[in-house]
Amino acid sequence: MALITLLSDFGTADGFVGAMKGAILSLSPSSQVIDLSHDVARGNIRAGAWALACAAKTFPAGTVHVAVVDPGVGTERRPILLRAADQLYVAPDNGLVSWVDGIGSAEGWCLDRAELFRSPLSHTFHGRDIFASVAGHLAAGLDPSECGSVITDWRLLSWPAAQVEEHRIVGCVVHVDRFGNLVTNIHAGSLGNEARWQVSVGRRSIGPLKHTFGDVDTGAWVAYVGSTQYVEVAIRDGDAAEMIRTEDCEITLCRPS
Amino acid sequence: MALITLLSDFGTADGFVGAMKGAILSLSPSSQVIDLSHDVARGNIRAGAWALACAAKTFPAGTVHVAVVDPGVGTERRPILLRAADQLYVAPDNGLVSWVDGIGSAEGWCLDRAELFRSPLSHTFHGRDIFASVAGHLAAGLDPSECGSVITDWRLLSWPAAQVEEHRIVGCVVHVDRFGNLVTNIHAGSLGNEARWQVSVGRRSIGPLKHTFGDVDTGAWVAYVGSTQYVEVAIRDGDAAEMIRTEDCEITLCRPS
Amino acid sequence: MALITLLSDFGTADGFVGAMKGAILSLSPSSQVIDLSHDVARGNIRAGAWALACAAKTFPAGTVHVAVVDPGVGTERRPILLRAADQLYVAPDNGLVSWVDGIGSAEGWCLDRAELFRSPLSHTFHGRDIFASVAGHLAAGLDPSECGSVITDWRLLSWPAAQVEEHRIVGCVVHVDRFGNLVTNIHAGSLGNEARWQVSVGRRSIGPLKHTFGDVDTGAWVAYVGSTQYVEVAIRDGDAAEMIRTEDCEITLCRPS
Repeated sequence: MALITLLSDFGTADGFVGAMKGAILSLSPSSQVIDLSHDVARGNIRAGAWALACAAKTFPAGTVHVAVVDPGVGTERRPILLRAADQLYVAPDNGLVSWVDGIGSAEGWCLDRAELFRSPLSHTFHGRDIFASVAGHLAAGLDPSECGSVITDWRLLSWPAAQVEEHRIVGCVVHVDRFGNLVTNIHAGSLGNEARWQVSVGRRSIGPLKHTFGDVDTGAWVAYVGSTQYVEVAIRDGDAAEMIRTEDCEITLCRPS
Repeated sequence: MALITLLSDFGTADGFVGAMKGAILSLSPSSQVIDLSHDVARGNIRAGAWALACAAKTFPAGTVHVAVVDPGVGTERRPILLRAADQLYVAPDNGLVSWVDGIGSAEGWCLDRAELFRSPLSHTFHGRDIFASVAGHLAAGLDPSECGSVITDWRLLSWPAAQVEEHRIVGCVVHVDRFGNLVTNIHAGSLGNEARWQVSVGRRSIGPLKHTFGDVDTGAWVAYVGSTQYVEVAIRDGDAAEMIRTEDCEITLCRPS
Repeated sequence: MALITLLSDFGTADGFVGAMKGAILSLSPSSQVIDLSHDVARGNIRAGAWALACAAKTFPAGTVHVAVVDPGVGTERRPILLRAADQLYVAPDNGLVSWVDGIGSAEGWCLDRAELFRSPLSHTFHGRDIFASVAGHLAAGLDPSECGSVITDWRLLSWPAAQVEEHRIVGCVVHVDRFGNLVTNIHAGSLGNEARWQVSVGRRSIGPLKHTFGDVDTGAWVAYVGSTQYVEVAIRDGDAAEMIRTEDCEITLCRPS
């Protein structure tokens, strides 16, 4: 049984998501269709890319991920298929797949074989007519190489690199989650001995890097290595994002020399 | 593996949707249950009917669609089963199935066989006790004709016909989607040569009918034939519904004689 | 095909829910993963417990329910597995399973076998690394007794008992649903002959206990035995929760002696 996931910014009040599911299942009726998220902020490619990367990495090899946050639908942006770390991604070529595992050594195809699309092809709902349709064919056994022309120049989003020095790391907030926790661009791999780092959020010192929420009292700020292996900053049982301007907030880790 | 879809206005914070899924799977454990939408506006039968019609049409023959937007639960409105275009619809008889493919030549049954319901039968949650239960029996192989008495008088919602003349078409907004795009009642089949139509939204002229968003600049109004084959009016990368009163707004297409 | 349900307060904008699904399916690729709810109010264990109890009871024996409303993640609260009424529950030991069918005669295990968890084990996302992982192993055939040490002291939430006298029952609101209907703690089993009860909401008398919405006019208050077998109070086609303070509102039923 093939697994196909869906991620979009379509919300779930309209028939869009259902129409995509039907388009897949009409081609591959025994596949299982799995919702990742349909509540990505409208048109926010970076938020969609982050959610896709976090979710897709746990799926088994061979899963087909259909990701549609596509403000450019109806422009010349290409529809693409990538194979990265043995998983398949069907998406617009706008950077949505930037942060998935194995992207650095991925294979890619431009979806340019119109016989794999639904007909008539709408100009405004490629989620149904191109992405879901191609995913249905893949789930039914079509080889990725049969889906279009090989490409190597898919679009990648920029990633704001943290400044990493021996005694000081300066990063920023790259994602705010449902709980108001702030995910930074500072990876656990940069930390060496975690225990000695002191954390600041903007000009607010919040003490040493901890392991988890339970290491501080309710209402206190806490920083820890999160479930994505990036440092996160939170308020225990609170909402850190409500307390600061996340866009321009530096997160700084320092340790004594 | 039978496919069963669910559409409702139940939201997803309570246990209602889960209870329906369990009611289905306890009767037909190997069927696949697919969410179409549970965020139809509360009690809005027209919005539910539109979403159902858009989503259901892509599913394979034999799919069982359970649709529950049912402000009349606990009144005398009948629970019904329809077969239209080889798909099955289980729903309250309040017009929710009005716009699905093949409704004009559908077969119908009144769900009046209490042995197919859950027991005890609640007076307020027919979604679980009647609709999901009958869908589970259908998915397990029961023939539609075994579900109740034949009917032909199911309720249909009115559809506001567009005024179509050779050089002028006047329509209205029948649905607003998640992106604020306005779906009208003007069907592509009325347009003949699309290229020559000039579009007005109320008294605002927005220029010729286009193919897609990309044909205008960001922030500009655009009209095009949408993914349901009806003309839509939108603002590129914006929210058209925020800009006008959709209830009483005429959409006019004119072409030179 | 094993059935696994998910209930959480994770919302659906992030990748959390998707990551849990992948963690399950990577261990048990042919199981069907079913969403119960991901919109439980953030950190609200009582709301999650109610939704879980309402939804889970309809599922077939052997279903694995993964429930994660877990404000204590990263503290010493235990992860647990319960078997109640032939269904399995994987959850934090915070009372979330309190109201499921069969809890009074359930068997329990503390999830203390780290080889069943994902590695590296995060301190903040046990939904993925412990609960989904153990559920995946269960769906793949692992016996509950292999998941950890036997326990009998899992945490149970308090339940506010209604005061039941022969001619007077006083209860309170235990849940507000999506429609603003108020679910009370007064069980149908306390009512005897329903027909004679007069209902008050706070100091407002709303007349005799009815069967369903249709027994009163639009806009009128109505009380009836709801789909969970508890008395509910509602406003037909309205939102009762908007009209009163539910926290401190007594619901009183009286009948003549």
